[in-house]
Amino acid sequence: MALVVQKFGGTSVGSVERIRNVAKRVAKTYDAGNDVIVVVSAMSGETNKLVALANEVTEFPDTREYDVLVSSGEQVTVALLAMCLKSMGYKAKSYIGHQISILTDSSFSKARIKKINDKKIRQDLNDRTIIIAAGFQGVDGDGNITTLGRGGSDTSGVALAAALKADVCEIFTDVDGVYTTDPNICETARKIDRISYDEMLELASLGAKVLQIRSVQFAKKFNVDVHVRSSFNDNPGTLVTKEDKEMESILVSGITYAKDETKIAVMRVPDKPGIAAKILSPLSAANISVDMILQNVSEDGFTDFTFTVTKADFKKALMITKEAAAEIHARDVLTDDNISKVSVVGLGMRSHAGVATRMFETLAKEGINIQMISTSEIKVSVVIDAKYTELAVRVLHDEFELSGKEVTVER
Amino acid sequence: MALVVQKFGGTSVGSVERIRNVAKRVAKTYDAGNDVIVVVSAMSGETNKLVALANEVTEFPDTREYDVLVSSGEQVTVALLAMCLKSMGYKAKSYIGHQISILTDSSFSKARIKKINDKKIRQDLNDRTIIIAAGFQGVDGDGNITTLGRGGSDTSGVALAAALKADVCEIFTDVDGVYTTDPNICETARKIDRISYDEMLELASLGAKVLQIRSVQFAKKFNVDVHVRSSFNDNPGTLVTKEDKEMESILVSGITYAKDETKIAVMRVPDKPGIAAKILSPLSAANISVDMILQNVSEDGFTDFTFTVTKADFKKALMITKEAAAEIHARDVLTDDNISKVSVVGLGMRSHAGVATRMFETLAKEGINIQMISTSEIKVSVVIDAKYTELAVRVLHDEFELSGKEVTVER
Repeated sequence: MALVVQKFGGTSVGSVERIRNVAKRVAKTYDAGNDVIVVVSAMSGETNKLVALANEVTEFPDTREYDVLVSSGEQVTVALLAMCLKSMGYKAKSYIGHQISILTDSSFSKARIKKINDKKIRQDLNDRTIIIAAGFQGVDGDGNITTLGRGGSDTSGVALAAALKADVCEIFTDVDGVYTTDPNICETARKIDRISYDEMLELASLGAKVLQIRSVQFAKKFNVDVHVRSSFNDNPGTLVTKEDKEMESILVSGITYAKDETKIAVMRVPDKPGIAAKILSPLSAANISVDMILQNVSEDGFTDFTFTVTKADFKKALMITKEAAAEIHARDVLTDDNISKVSVVGLGMRSHAGVATRMFETLAKEGINIQMISTSEIKVSVVIDAKYTELAVRVLHDEFELSGKEVTVER
Repeated sequence: MALVVQKFGGTSVGSVERIRNVAKRVAKTYDAGNDVIVVVSAMSGETNKLVALANEVTEFPDTREYDVLVSSGEQVTVALLAMCLKSMGYKAKSYIGHQISILTDSSFSKARIKKINDKKIRQDLNDRTIIIAAGFQGVDGDGNITTLGRGGSDTSGVALAAALKADVCEIFTDVDGVYTTDPNICETARKIDRISYDEMLELASLGAKVLQIRSVQFAKKFNVDVHVRSSFNDNPGTLVTKEDKEMESILVSGITYAKDETKIAVMRVPDKPGIAAKILSPLSAANISVDMILQNVSEDGFTDFTFTVTKADFKKALMITKEAAAEIHARDVLTDDNISKVSVVGLGMRSHAGVATRMFETLAKEGINIQMISTSEIKVSVVIDAKYTELAVRVLHDEFELSGKEVTVER
């Protein structure tokens, strides 16, 4: 007998029919003798509908009230799922954020979990009650409703698994697991059976949308085994877990791409110490994350300073950059949103040199120009012209021998 | 400067545009120097949508989870209204049931308010913040979400007004106030300027849908002035308040009708003591309220026993009655849902006899047969064939001189 946390996303609970399927799956796990905590998102489309209402009211909704608004979505789902399980004869009970309670800081819309009070849940589990917990939401020290940011239900699931020392946190999704790359653009993409937290973190940061980054950080910190699997079948998915020798022997685990960044280039900046800070400080002060950064080789005491931000931050970032550029007497600020970032990720890079070189050569062979580069211990990312994205992913997937030969990709 | 509670129903907050209008009205009251507590229902249609989801899941939804589900509707509205007021530059803050907290018993879906904690709200009011409170919902001693029954937001409003000793509780609705009868079937119906709690209680119990009964009981108990008025204009509405001499001088204040009852007749029951109890006890044990009761004059030691229940309770009531009828060897159980209850209400009846007689004579003159009668100190109700409802209301409205002569009825 184990304690299993099962998290179901919006698509998996998108209709009453699907909620019924989720209930059956939960019941099966429970009937096998396990204690079960279920974490659910809002029904797909609901959060968007609520957000649209907020935007209809005002362009800049108050963040406290925004969280009150959007957290209502999960409240609907937990109630429906608990009703469904009870109508099937199971003991089940819904919990919303403050009832658990999931204590967070007060950063509305992107709150961080500080503490989970597991007392009530433990009592119910001891009583063999199935816990249905609202994902995505928490409560701050003053009793205000908070939310954890888009995809926050993954984090709720992993955090509950950590707090209650669950044996596994199963994240049910509409794909079969984590793939070596996006099967939509590379038909030889293969499901990965096991992957380390660090690789998963890189993949999640670099564009793989299957898990929220913070949930992986949580899993790593508290050593929670996360099993990413399909809510539509019983196939084993991908286990995200502590790294081991076997994982290290794999040079590259996955290829990701992201088209959600825009390039901003500050042209002809005087090449003096402190220039980067002058451009980047106001951006970080405005809570804008800069991803890739490139400073060209100096020429006559001038240089170009280029960086990328997400498309969501772009408008604000451009405004701030233009102000900074004027102050440091740059000649111009250029932008390009026709870019994409392609990355290769693998623990094996730590002990094997040459991955970056192989990557650059492979792209060069196809005539793909590399605009920016960034690396970490276990990943290499490049910015290229967006139109080459699919091609780049496919040739790299081949180059690093990721194609599944015997495994059929089910979608 | 006063403390004003303003309650807006589902129609008044049925769209973002209407929420904006509510915000403007609240702001106007606030700008006049008043402290304001706003109580809102779910957007019209939303509660029905949630109920439909529950019924799609199961025929008999668990009541605890049902309350978790439907209470999400008000959460949406308080957030949107608070956002709207904040975007207009006002200090505003939403509160849902447990945040206030509105402590209730644990009778899910028809919980009764036990205590309101006004500490947080008072702090915010002192700070000149507009309070936006979710109507309809509360929290029980164990932290479970409860709801107060359909129309419960009226009760939330009056209860908050009582707890915070507000100067008035304004109930905004889609009509101009309380009418002498339904203007839809009697075009001479007139808006009542002032009415006593007791008359309002009878009117509300007898079919006038403008206020939830429990809210009037609350208002009476705590002496809260309730001003029922239109959310679409600034006309004065109806003040529900303590009775005074002037009110007592009015013989009949209003005529109501209700078509939501069904008659159940147990035929040829042995006319022995305890028979009524044998039929009614199992019904009350099943929490079914019996309204009108009639026991015919005995004939050869047998009698007919007739009563009415709401259409909502009918199916269950019939099942129970048939069982009881079999036990006491009644010959048959007949039902008739083609009935309506017409009532006249007025404080003046206390001191003036003859209202019932005038009522019966008036109906007789039109050939309307009276099937059942029930009376209280300030009302007379009769059950008649449903097809005569409108006619009965109109002739009684005339007979008791309720028609507005100089007052134009605005709808």
